[in-house]
Amino acid sequence: MNYPKGIKTEKNINSSNIKYDNRGMGLENDINITNQYYIEKKKAYIYKKPTPIQVTKIDYRNNSMVIKEGYFKEPSTTDYNGLYDGKYIDFEAKETNSKTSFPLSNIHKHQILHIKNIVDNGGIGFLIVRFNKMNKNYLLLGEDLIDFLVKNKRKSIPVDYFEKKGFLILDSYMPRIDYLKVIDDILGGSEDGKEKEEK
Amino acid sequence: MNYPKGIKTEKNINSSNIKYDNRGMGLENDINITNQYYIEKKKAYIYKKPTPIQVTKIDYRNNSMVIKEGYFKEPSTTDYNGLYDGKYIDFEAKETNSKTSFPLSNIHKHQILHIKNIVDNGGIGFLIVRFNKMNKNYLLLGEDLIDFLVKNKRKSIPVDYFEKKGFLILDSYMPRIDYLKVIDDILGGSEDGKEKEEK
Repeated sequence: MNYPKGIKTEKNINSSNIKYDNRGMGLENDINITNQYYIEKKKAYIYKKPTPIQVTKIDYRNNSMVIKEGYFKEPSTTDYNGLYDGKYIDFEAKETNSKTSFPLSNIHKHQILHIKNIVDNGGIGFLIVRFNKMNKNYLLLGEDLIDFLVKNKRKSIPVDYFEKKGFLILDSYMPRIDYLKVIDDILGGSEDGKEKEEK
Repeated sequence: MNYPKGIKTEKNINSSNIKYDNRGMGLENDINITNQYYIEKKKAYIYKKPTPIQVTKIDYRNNSMVIKEGYFKEPSTTDYNGLYDGKYIDFEAKETNSKTSFPLSNIHKHQILHIKNIVDNGGIGFLIVRFNKMNKNYLLLGEDLIDFLVKNKRKSIPVDYFEKKGFLILDSYMPRIDYLKVIDDILGGSEDGKEKEEK
């Protein structure tokens, strides 16, 4: 029998510390702080969606309800969405420790369909991928993600695809990860948004 | 001690049957079917957000995770959002059995702030309220909701405010509750969207 280190029972934890998939808290934290900055500066209103949970058992007591059994569901949408300058923004943020590629196992099928729906309906959908070992964050537009998936059978997206098609998000102090700067560059750049001014 | 009828223990239920607030399943169901119709007809992509849950205890076994304790959190955003013709759509749907007014206890403070943020950032935010006894569904724009709250200290919005400022959503077979028709009328109507062609 294979009992991995994951065997622990009834551990009390704060939900903000839960790492239930390979989404990195470092990037997520940076994005949350960045979004808060955008809200305070009235630049944009972008927020995190709740984590989808399947509730299977509830304890009713004193007119209150306590969930006694539930499961983390496979997400059918992305982590973040909102509004920037009247435009619909929607993205998923992921970290990887790989030096060579971004494993597609990080994104669920429904999330890819969601991003496709966003793009097809006139929204701005993208991935933010942090390559931890190189300390680089890339923004990859939904169009380019879908295009890769259509044209490739690979189980990961090589770093050079991010270098070629993605947009590097430069580090800064405030906001930490200024991805809307990249969106500005894309929208203000070439008509199809594929060319980068910074390159 | 006041033990209401809510005392039940460890009841197994399907999450789709959970009624944990006064949100009506009838209206919600109609909206879900309508949104599905919009997606199939490629008219819009509008979806339901997950219910926010605070997870406080997890059981780790065989590398899987079972939530053993959690609570329904007060929602900080609305139930639905998405894209229609490139525009950001965001709304909350509520039913009431009152014949005279819509009780504001149905909407949380954070949800109102959310709707204000949507409007301030160029999105289309609104409420859909079903008055069950009159079998009428109204769409009330976020602007008009906020305006009412700023000008009134009341704990409910009278029906006549919906009749005056809201937009009646006519019943139909497919889609069941064609709220985007109302959005079309508003956008195609007067510049400030306050006048109704159907009246």
